[in-house]
Amino acid sequence: MMDADVIVVGGGVIGTAIAWRAAVAGRTVTLIDPDTDDKASLVAAGMLGPVSESVFGEQDLLALNLHAIDRFPAFNAELEAASGQPTGLRTEGTLAVAYDSGDLAALDRLTEFRHSIGLKAERLDARACRRLEPFLAPSTRGGVLATGDLSVDNRRYLAALRAAAATAGVRTVVGQVTDVAAGLVRFRAGSGDVTAGETAELTAAHVVVAAGWGTARIEGVPDPIRKAIRPVKGQILRLRHPSNLPHIISHTVRAIVQGRDIYLVPRADGELVVGATQEERDDRDITAGAVHDLLRDAMTAVPAISELILAEASAGRRPGTSDNGPILGPVTPAGPITPAGAVTPAGRVTPAGPAATTSRPIGDPRLIIAAGHFRNGVLLSAVTADAVAALLAGGEPHPAWSPFNPGRLA
Amino acid sequence: MMDADVIVVGGGVIGTAIAWRAAVAGRTVTLIDPDTDDKASLVAAGMLGPVSESVFGEQDLLALNLHAIDRFPAFNAELEAASGQPTGLRTEGTLAVAYDSGDLAALDRLTEFRHSIGLKAERLDARACRRLEPFLAPSTRGGVLATGDLSVDNRRYLAALRAAAATAGVRTVVGQVTDVAAGLVRFRAGSGDVTAGETAELTAAHVVVAAGWGTARIEGVPDPIRKAIRPVKGQILRLRHPSNLPHIISHTVRAIVQGRDIYLVPRADGELVVGATQEERDDRDITAGAVHDLLRDAMTAVPAISELILAEASAGRRPGTSDNGPILGPVTPAGPITPAGAVTPAGRVTPAGPAATTSRPIGDPRLIIAAGHFRNGVLLSAVTADAVAALLAGGEPHPAWSPFNPGRLA
Repeated sequence: MMDADVIVVGGGVIGTAIAWRAAVAGRTVTLIDPDTDDKASLVAAGMLGPVSESVFGEQDLLALNLHAIDRFPAFNAELEAASGQPTGLRTEGTLAVAYDSGDLAALDRLTEFRHSIGLKAERLDARACRRLEPFLAPSTRGGVLATGDLSVDNRRYLAALRAAAATAGVRTVVGQVTDVAAGLVRFRAGSGDVTAGETAELTAAHVVVAAGWGTARIEGVPDPIRKAIRPVKGQILRLRHPSNLPHIISHTVRAIVQGRDIYLVPRADGELVVGATQEERDDRDITAGAVHDLLRDAMTAVPAISELILAEASAGRRPGTSDNGPILGPVTPAGPITPAGAVTPAGRVTPAGPAATTSRPIGDPRLIIAAGHFRNGVLLSAVTADAVAALLAGGEPHPAWSPFNPGRLA
Repeated sequence: MMDADVIVVGGGVIGTAIAWRAAVAGRTVTLIDPDTDDKASLVAAGMLGPVSESVFGEQDLLALNLHAIDRFPAFNAELEAASGQPTGLRTEGTLAVAYDSGDLAALDRLTEFRHSIGLKAERLDARACRRLEPFLAPSTRGGVLATGDLSVDNRRYLAALRAAAATAGVRTVVGQVTDVAAGLVRFRAGSGDVTAGETAELTAAHVVVAAGWGTARIEGVPDPIRKAIRPVKGQILRLRHPSNLPHIISHTVRAIVQGRDIYLVPRADGELVVGATQEERDDRDITAGAVHDLLRDAMTAVPAISELILAEASAGRRPGTSDNGPILGPVTPAGPITPAGAVTPAGRVTPAGPAATTSRPIGDPRLIIAAGHFRNGVLLSAVTADAVAALLAGGEPHPAWSPFNPGRLA
């Protein structure tokens, strides 16, 4: 008797979306998450821009992102209905603006690229930009309006996913997963079902690892995948409007300021997210220099931002990969598992007391990875859940996923 | 029977120092404080610079500050002994530096002023400045070392005062004082001795109001004093060194950066305080513009500050006064008090149920104000406690206090 049909490792937007959709499909699902605030999903801005988050040359990722933005509104509508919680979806689009002539040249290249792939992107002169966003700096040189872009309040979105998952019957266990195998998960229990600090195991027909950059630290995940995933630190600010001030921007604004990229994502509740640094570091420190640079660039693009309240500075670790693309698909675990469920010395799951010697039937031995979403976690969450649902049902993910099979890393 | 010999209103560094010294002198003391983090004492930097905090022309305030800096070390030593807690006193002095030639001219004027009043202030060229503080910007033009300046960790200092006061027998009541009269205090109880939200009264021979800028909101404080005190908002940053970085400055550093003043106060535990804005506002919002400007100026003066952790941004309201000087001395309450202890309609203390009609003997009817310490609260706390102790004993404060009698505001 297994503990669940599916165990999902990781309770960010990817893992929770997967768990919700698997439960909706009628499976018994257990989600294991350490339940800390250390989640890229909570630090993110929730900007859903398929083009702006892929760079020239990453055509496969762009195609996947375009598939994701097409899918997002329907998924989100179903999520809001299932959870009864609004996710703060905004559809005003992205206004990208340039601060100086060099920035304008860079922006023009991006616009040409958008046009070349058939996307709408309307060039606007400075006056038209300021008509859309009156608080833009007078020195703004020009801009481009991308009407297809969306944004969502990433924290409300994750909260809605959790609520929907709970309603659909997903069982959540608080714990830090240390080892996985096909059909087996070992974790240090947090608070919740089991005593804190204890090592515990659960079994299931399918194990889905969606632990973000932490996937690289889980024993049993094949080495090529562990090596391909790295933390990419991002620092981000959350500003709030004081009660006497009207909301100063209404579109997502991306500004190129003397070669530096900054984005401003407004919320209906008066929050304005300013992001983000991209640092090859794995700490979560908020540094003086990063906060200064984000504020400087934001205030250069939109001077009135100086009057807003700095409500929060936070840092997260994005799951970066060697080719900037996500990793999705079934894998062979690093260590073979014996029919009795105990693990051979060659494997990464070591015996842990009496439980390990108990006969434990392994159903479907598949181990599925859904990680490495880098800067696109929120955007890709819906189609990732779809893809895993297809795999669990014995089917194939959407073709846009094929370049992102784990096999490419072997 | 009165509730105490002395009631002190306000538990910042001023009120707590007064309460401690009154208790050490053998009096029964009750201190009433709302016990929130909204205290200028907690937001301050703890810089003790008698000259730098008084401007040209404020000779009386300068004399008082010099009296205060003379007294501080002995008071602090007694405090550390009584509380068993270190206050983080530092004696390296202040290095004032200039960023450009205009800043250097301003610094030279300050140095001449220091010399003219007989204070030590050693002019240093850029090379000598960087020998003392190797992380100063290479563009530093020159500086002045003031060896007599001190600094203290204002939060540890307040904690030590609280511990010493408790050891000396001071009783603390959590509440927000709304009305005072000679010998009488009315307050809304917080948690603690009495039920939250209830109005309560306490009587004493002496009432000392040391409620910072909140003194202006207390009924019964004479109108000229209430009108003279205003909140002056200050925003300040607390940085921390990451574990892999040595402490980057060892003196208090004041920098004049293109006409703007910034100070950096280092602590032995790796904290570095960066202050501070001075705003004619009474909110406690942390604004994007203020944080940006503080970081920009700090990083201009000491570029390596960009690597430090931004641990906290906080805002407080300094008790500013119409002439920038503190207000210390006995006053006649705004409303007369009848022998029965009830207050006439002309007064500000209105009857509050049965308690107000009870016969309540008023001992010494004096009401003492000790407020309006503006930017010098920590520095002046020791001599303020001395001055109030003298008044309670029927004596006179040190002559340096005479220009700061409440009578000057009538």
